Amino acid sequence: MKASVFIGTSLDGFIARPNGEFDFLPADGGEPHGYNEFIASVDAIVIGRNTFETVLPMKPWPYAKKRVVVLSTKRLDFSAIVGANVEQMSGDPAEIISKLAASGATHLYIDGGITIQRFLRAGLIQRLIITRVPVLIGSGIPLFGSLEKDIHLRHISTKQYPSGLVSSEYVVDEAEERAGSK
Amino acid sequence: MKASVFIGTSLDGFIARPNGEFDFLPADGGEPHGYNEFIASVDAIVIGRNTFETVLPMKPWPYAKKRVVVLSTKRLDFSAIVGANVEQMSGDPAEIISKLAASGATHLYIDGGITIQRFLRAGLIQRLIITRVPVLIGSGIPLFGSLEKDIHLRHISTKQYPSGLVSSEYVVDEAEERAGSK
Repeated sequence: MKASVFIGTSLDGFIARPNGEFDFLPADGGEPHGYNEFIASVDAIVIGRNTFETVLPMKPWPYAKKRVVVLSTKRLDFSAIVGANVEQMSGDPAEIISKLAASGATHLYIDGGITIQRFLRAGLIQRLIITRVPVLIGSGIPLFGSLEKDIHLRHISTKQYPSGLVSSEYVVDEAEERAGSK
Repeated sequence: MKASVFIGTSLDGFIARPNGEFDFLPADGGEPHGYNEFIASVDAIVIGRNTFETVLPMKPWPYAKKRVVVLSTKRLDFSAIVGANVEQMSGDPAEIISKLAASGATHLYIDGGITIQRFLRAGLIQRLIITRVPVLIGSGIPLFGSLEKDIHLRHISTKQYPSGLVSSEYVVDEAEERAGSK
């Protein structure tokens, strides 16, 4: 089982404005920078309730037929979503990973600020693909949050695009992780 | 007159740990990634009191004979620094730029978190060279801070290094700045 993050941020590290808007990101995902290839490689998308509420009004449903798992302890109503493959789970990141592995998933897309931070803190993210948009917005919802200890990464490659997007891929350095854990 | 930033950060955007340490940055500046060429191009380095107090104990003085301007309203004692070209100024960023321009400077290196944030907010930074170190540290002194309005940047180029450093150069997009300013 592998869990990956694929996300766009402002240069100052925000994934949305304080009110949840992401107007500073290029419309329609911007210049192609690997999203279609990435999404084709995942079995399931794991998002939190905030991200779910952001995407819920979108027509069409942005995840098409891909399996979507919404993490929430509050009962969610999926009846308004047409043609989607969406389900609800709750539990800590390790439990979610176990349940999804048991159901046959091998590559998860972990999305949304709080959810990414929870899985990172639990040591359950193996790969991060972060695309920087060339703007500073000053405040908003940050991609990263507090950690109990450093997470060492290995840089795989960075691609730059004519529109100014810079996309860097990192893997969590497991040797360093082990050495660093007490 | 041009003012530039050249700085290393963790992938989560911190320039130092909460206590001011920067042990997560590679020792001795890491793999060469353009610092020597950059420093040779500047006439003066502008730092705040926090950065000054961080570099003060370093032997040798890290800025060699380069002109260093420390911003502080509190009287500073430079008597312990041997062989340095260091002076004190106070005032808002526009005043500092004016004074330095009047003294013949044409390219300033603006350094230190608070100082960079003040000059950015004042619209007085033209170029940013940001080198990401492949580690998440979770908390610390952030490179960027709040802004009154978005700052649109133009990506010039990104270089990646075998050690995992990724260095991106941006210029402040003046056309966008003008269009965005009311």
